[in-house]
Amino acid sequence: MSITDEDEDTLTFSNESFLDDFRSLSAIGATPGGGVERQAGTPEDHQTKKWLTEWLTGQGFEVRLDRIGNQFGMFEFKSGAPYVLLGSHLDSQPLAGRYDGALGVLTGAYAAARVVARAKSDEIEPQFNIAVANWFNEEGGWFKPSLMGSMVFTGKMDVETALAVLDPTGASVREMIDPIRDADYNGPAVSHYAEIHIEQGPVLERANTTIGLVDGAWVVNKYDLEIHGEQSHTGATVMEDRRDALYGASLIIVAVRELVDSFEPGLLHTSASEIFVYPNSSTTVARDVHVSIALRSPERAIVERATEMLAEKIREAEQKAKVSVDQRHYQNWGLASYQPEGVELARACAEELNLSYRTMPTVAGHDSTNFIDSVPTIMLFVPSVDGISHNEGEFTRDKDCCAGVDLMTLVAERLVTEGLETSQ
Amino acid sequence: MSITDEDEDTLTFSNESFLDDFRSLSAIGATPGGGVERQAGTPEDHQTKKWLTEWLTGQGFEVRLDRIGNQFGMFEFKSGAPYVLLGSHLDSQPLAGRYDGALGVLTGAYAAARVVARAKSDEIEPQFNIAVANWFNEEGGWFKPSLMGSMVFTGKMDVETALAVLDPTGASVREMIDPIRDADYNGPAVSHYAEIHIEQGPVLERANTTIGLVDGAWVVNKYDLEIHGEQSHTGATVMEDRRDALYGASLIIVAVRELVDSFEPGLLHTSASEIFVYPNSSTTVARDVHVSIALRSPERAIVERATEMLAEKIREAEQKAKVSVDQRHYQNWGLASYQPEGVELARACAEELNLSYRTMPTVAGHDSTNFIDSVPTIMLFVPSVDGISHNEGEFTRDKDCCAGVDLMTLVAERLVTEGLETSQ
Repeated sequence: MSITDEDEDTLTFSNESFLDDFRSLSAIGATPGGGVERQAGTPEDHQTKKWLTEWLTGQGFEVRLDRIGNQFGMFEFKSGAPYVLLGSHLDSQPLAGRYDGALGVLTGAYAAARVVARAKSDEIEPQFNIAVANWFNEEGGWFKPSLMGSMVFTGKMDVETALAVLDPTGASVREMIDPIRDADYNGPAVSHYAEIHIEQGPVLERANTTIGLVDGAWVVNKYDLEIHGEQSHTGATVMEDRRDALYGASLIIVAVRELVDSFEPGLLHTSASEIFVYPNSSTTVARDVHVSIALRSPERAIVERATEMLAEKIREAEQKAKVSVDQRHYQNWGLASYQPEGVELARACAEELNLSYRTMPTVAGHDSTNFIDSVPTIMLFVPSVDGISHNEGEFTRDKDCCAGVDLMTLVAERLVTEGLETSQ
Repeated sequence: MSITDEDEDTLTFSNESFLDDFRSLSAIGATPGGGVERQAGTPEDHQTKKWLTEWLTGQGFEVRLDRIGNQFGMFEFKSGAPYVLLGSHLDSQPLAGRYDGALGVLTGAYAAARVVARAKSDEIEPQFNIAVANWFNEEGGWFKPSLMGSMVFTGKMDVETALAVLDPTGASVREMIDPIRDADYNGPAVSHYAEIHIEQGPVLERANTTIGLVDGAWVVNKYDLEIHGEQSHTGATVMEDRRDALYGASLIIVAVRELVDSFEPGLLHTSASEIFVYPNSSTTVARDVHVSIALRSPERAIVERATEMLAEKIREAEQKAKVSVDQRHYQNWGLASYQPEGVELARACAEELNLSYRTMPTVAGHDSTNFIDSVPTIMLFVPSVDGISHNEGEFTRDKDCCAGVDLMTLVAERLVTEGLETSQ
């Protein structure tokens, strides 16, 4: 009898109650279009933390928040042993879908609770403790960079630097999370990390496959551009005299998109989706424009080549619009590989549960990539209908959500009882 | 003896005291870079109104605000006679220069006060009364359209429509000006209108000429564009699946600028300087973008041809970026001619004062254009150093400011005593 058949019999952590709980969670920050809006540090974000605290406490987990507002629910089997950590995030984009992040956190919580139940009834004998994580500011929609909480937790970002980050209105991370964080707590010691997430792309759904076994992450280079021009009158100023920062920015945004056409389809993803214009008056030529851009590829050489091509386009824009451009690198993920032993463990579990699967890379960034260089790390996907994400219409079918919970439960049980040796 | 030699002898309305008063006025909303920021309806805008009320009241003018927040300082020579109105505006762009508008209002106030002084001492015999106007929201940087106050005053915009206009944060004109406006007052009856303004272009300075006699205004078509795409993930979404509203907007902004290259230099001015992006997150493809654009020319046919060319570019952008674009015409000035008799009156006055002059059109919009079709209207320019405007570095030399005061005084005296018959 598999662990999931067993659990279907216990009302507490059944797939039915998982779907019920997911509906409750989705009501926090719900939007009219069926999505959620609970950006990092907002009251809605805090409310999801409260909801999760209540849920975890009810199952006997100890809940703590660390110095950057990451939330942990911990269950100790063996005093002093490190934790198998199952994480994702409850913060969202503006007008976002309800699955991105939240599905992974609740799945981690259910998987952990099922493992605890089996351990309590002596069906398994854990060698490690188990914990659930809700990472602060995975999205980075308002406070940049994204993946902030897991970066601080894994030592990739200094906590003071993170706390000092300002949103575009000048409010700091510190003032947003001071009411809820524990400045003296750094979180639990971790032996293994696992995360499940919606794919946010169409690959699994189009292939009619339930599980993505993530074996690597794309290279991502993110830049902030500051385009400097000069304020002038939109009517009276002679065209030749204008130094139009919004024209310069627009030339660059077009170039960023059209870089993609120089490469085989699918080898380069680019974006420019955030812009701030000063003074942003219909009757005054813009003096300064801020644009954030990203270049992504499964191959480092392509991101490098695209970056060079873009530099040339930026020089052209500077000349055409008579502006100057400052470019600042603000986030950079190298090509990352998940340890093959972790992929194999997850594959064996999927096989055992009769779930269809394929290995695939992730294009989006995930908190799990911050763990690869320190502990064995497993990353799993479930399908996104039509690949829609960062959109109220984001949707993953109930059966796929539940398959994810079953798979994560089995993966967590294996990690807790057997651990995982990796050669990397 | 000319009127100005006379006034140089009276300390009250001397050019020295004009420059002193202009410095006091420029201290309201002063910015570190030597400019001012007092956008329509803000506390700084209200503060300039208070300052002007005190000044005018001190010279014996009756001061009233009308239903849309236009401010009038009136002096009655003949009970029931209509007014020669000297106007401009004290509101500003964000981080603006201190001359744009304010120079014209204070010049009007000084000219009116000098005329009153001469009438009181029986040197002249007025046939009309005299008044100064400070028009509400000339700039339109925050509440659109520009020239709002004079449009309502001249019946070109319904007052309820104007009061209902919202700024981008959702605040209405009504709530901004309710504390100061007089909902039951429509302003004085007007017989003639005159306005002086900085040129905001380089023509006068480059020609070493003191006075611009404005004989016409360019055609202007202003549009709001709404570009509709779809939110998606900036990383994971396949490029072909994206409907990127910011990419679409950028294609259009580039096209708006490059329309200019299809015409002889100086025949078409275009601009796009205001943009709002939703959700404006660095990790979510933009679903909706708002852009305001303007096309200006001394020839109607050129604006029409440019509008057609732009429509084609917008269709191309819709296809390339997989977006849809709604275009709304929000302001439109036809080609306007100032009555030649007014230009001639101003020319004769400039000649009498030994001021160099040239006739020229205005590219920027001015409140005076709203009066042309109802009363004899005179529009004057003084030079802008390097043509810089809508910029803290905006500058007009003291001697040119004072020449403007002298000229406006003589023009106002002629209008008040002799009136002006026009054939149009």
